[in-house]
Amino acid sequence: MNSTPNKIITIEIAYYQVPLEEVLSDAKHGDHTHFELILCKIGCEDGTEGVGYTYTGGKGGRAIYSLLNDEFKPLLLNQDASQIENIWDEMEWHLHYVGRGGLVSFAMSAVDIALWDVRCKRLNKPLWQVAGGANNTTACYAGGIDLNFSQEKLLNNIQGYLDNGYKAVKIKVGKENHREDVERVAAVRELIGSDVVFMVDANYSLSVEQAIVFGKAIEQYNITWFEEPTIPDDYLGFAKIADNINIPLAMGENLHTLHEFGYAVAQAKLGFLQPDASNIGGITGFLRVAKMAEENNLPLCSHGMHELHVSLLASQAHAGYLEVHSFPIDQYTKHPLQLDENGRAIAPDVAGTGVVFDDALLDQYLIKHS
Amino acid sequence: MNSTPNKIITIEIAYYQVPLEEVLSDAKHGDHTHFELILCKIGCEDGTEGVGYTYTGGKGGRAIYSLLNDEFKPLLLNQDASQIENIWDEMEWHLHYVGRGGLVSFAMSAVDIALWDVRCKRLNKPLWQVAGGANNTTACYAGGIDLNFSQEKLLNNIQGYLDNGYKAVKIKVGKENHREDVERVAAVRELIGSDVVFMVDANYSLSVEQAIVFGKAIEQYNITWFEEPTIPDDYLGFAKIADNINIPLAMGENLHTLHEFGYAVAQAKLGFLQPDASNIGGITGFLRVAKMAEENNLPLCSHGMHELHVSLLASQAHAGYLEVHSFPIDQYTKHPLQLDENGRAIAPDVAGTGVVFDDALLDQYLIKHS
Repeated sequence: MNSTPNKIITIEIAYYQVPLEEVLSDAKHGDHTHFELILCKIGCEDGTEGVGYTYTGGKGGRAIYSLLNDEFKPLLLNQDASQIENIWDEMEWHLHYVGRGGLVSFAMSAVDIALWDVRCKRLNKPLWQVAGGANNTTACYAGGIDLNFSQEKLLNNIQGYLDNGYKAVKIKVGKENHREDVERVAAVRELIGSDVVFMVDANYSLSVEQAIVFGKAIEQYNITWFEEPTIPDDYLGFAKIADNINIPLAMGENLHTLHEFGYAVAQAKLGFLQPDASNIGGITGFLRVAKMAEENNLPLCSHGMHELHVSLLASQAHAGYLEVHSFPIDQYTKHPLQLDENGRAIAPDVAGTGVVFDDALLDQYLIKHS
Repeated sequence: MNSTPNKIITIEIAYYQVPLEEVLSDAKHGDHTHFELILCKIGCEDGTEGVGYTYTGGKGGRAIYSLLNDEFKPLLLNQDASQIENIWDEMEWHLHYVGRGGLVSFAMSAVDIALWDVRCKRLNKPLWQVAGGANNTTACYAGGIDLNFSQEKLLNNIQGYLDNGYKAVKIKVGKENHREDVERVAAVRELIGSDVVFMVDANYSLSVEQAIVFGKAIEQYNITWFEEPTIPDDYLGFAKIADNINIPLAMGENLHTLHEFGYAVAQAKLGFLQPDASNIGGITGFLRVAKMAEENNLPLCSHGMHELHVSLLASQAHAGYLEVHSFPIDQYTKHPLQLDENGRAIAPDVAGTGVVFDDALLDQYLIKHS
């Protein structure tokens, strides 16, 4: 990697609340009216500027802003931006007592992504090449936060995905009465036909026993994965579910340290890993999970921020499916996600991470900055 | 428990940076020049006011302030203060995506302690009675952040503990050369004689292999526990150390969810549990860990904030040793810790948690409040 010294001379932090077009709901996080976006811009002595970011479903963003502004900014100014992996370790230890996951992982992510943007720009290469280079496209799926959609609206929404070229779809499950979930799964499979890939996501709302009952009831619909059937901390509960149903399990969005991924891989009998660079420590953290996936023969998938993950999944030979998420962060960038004619997502071919925010669109949602 | 409804009508948050008399160092957290104190005052419709708090070793406090002010205050206003356990669960789920330990556990702690203060005041009873009532005193030990003290200063410091009536002491270990640690352990044991209880704490600075070598080298000095020999995430590494040395292991200050304590109890072969009510979700979290300790026949100890933990340990029949910590929070309260003639710490006998801050002493260190 590029190791020419390059001193960090400015760090700017900005916090936005971006409204969603409609209120979205899932089984555990309740209603989403907006998402929070926290940007970290790092300016270097050689004139390169890197932009990193993280996001939340609406809560905790101002605490992330504080971590970036009050803790990481003084730590990072005057450091060498090319020493990304060292800086990652230093951030982790610096806030270890209040960290080990949680909000600190989100703040680390914003810094790390900015440093990778600098790295790619100095190499004058796109992220998909610098991060691995296996490919410049990846399989992907469209997933909605659609638990409270009526069945009619759900099917219209899925039809919209198909019309837009998607070859794989995911729906939320976790209704009060699981028979209703089974009916929705059956209706979606009927709509999409047998060739479209289909996943379900319970947002950890079920007990182990409920997950087994529900999993058995939907096995016949050829489900590619059952995501977060129960709470992410219950690795052995996941394993018990995996032992009792014929659908692979998936998780990752709620694992925010490499140790948690390590335990999950060792104990939870997962079929897919779904890290999120916005909460696992950025691109450095994501690629460490990618290595873990490769070593354990698990397809690497993703959660959220598809405008960035498209390049990371494309770069890896063991990529599974990119999640195209309901939080439309990419609509506020210069390169919204594009699919090719085979329904594969295309990594941006510009120097840097490829995520270039459009200030003209975002500025109206700025709450504070420094 | 008291369940008469009692609406929360005011919530005030205050953030302090309190300087330490001298710079204190341990093997992993580096130098401490001050500690951060974050107070949460909850006022109820019946006029009762509860005071809760959390602290850090100097970093992350402003993010905790944000969580309390921006996230928990709007969630909690107008709720029923007597529903402590429900509020605890609600706080955990409300910030689950950015939480599951880390800073969210610290913020929950400040709220929860304030609610317990309200509960005890309405019952007109001290915390040691309300939390369990087993006793009003507890065994305790004095532990310094003394890794960088010369051996002479270390021994003077230990002698000071004995002069002040302590019957148990702990020192930091984790020097570059472990032979130096062995010499310090030998010198301390020679100073204190055979009757004084003696523990060591590596602040997770050693590898599993290093911890085994060091543990074997100090077995002869009758060490009551070896605290955090290696990183807290490595439960199986702890178990390997436990299998290879004749000193019980202890940890807890870095376990910030009940799930983490659950895994540690199941897998790490610990001899003592050391939760900290400032980072495990307050008194509710602490008592849940206490129950886990009881069910697994482990003595319940504590980390930090002795002015509060004295009442919690006294209240439990399976109490081990209270840590009397180097951050002198109690010096800024109306009831600094007191020992009886047997070297046991005495729980305050006033209605409430017994932790009543002295504004006249603290106000000079106030950074912000709302």
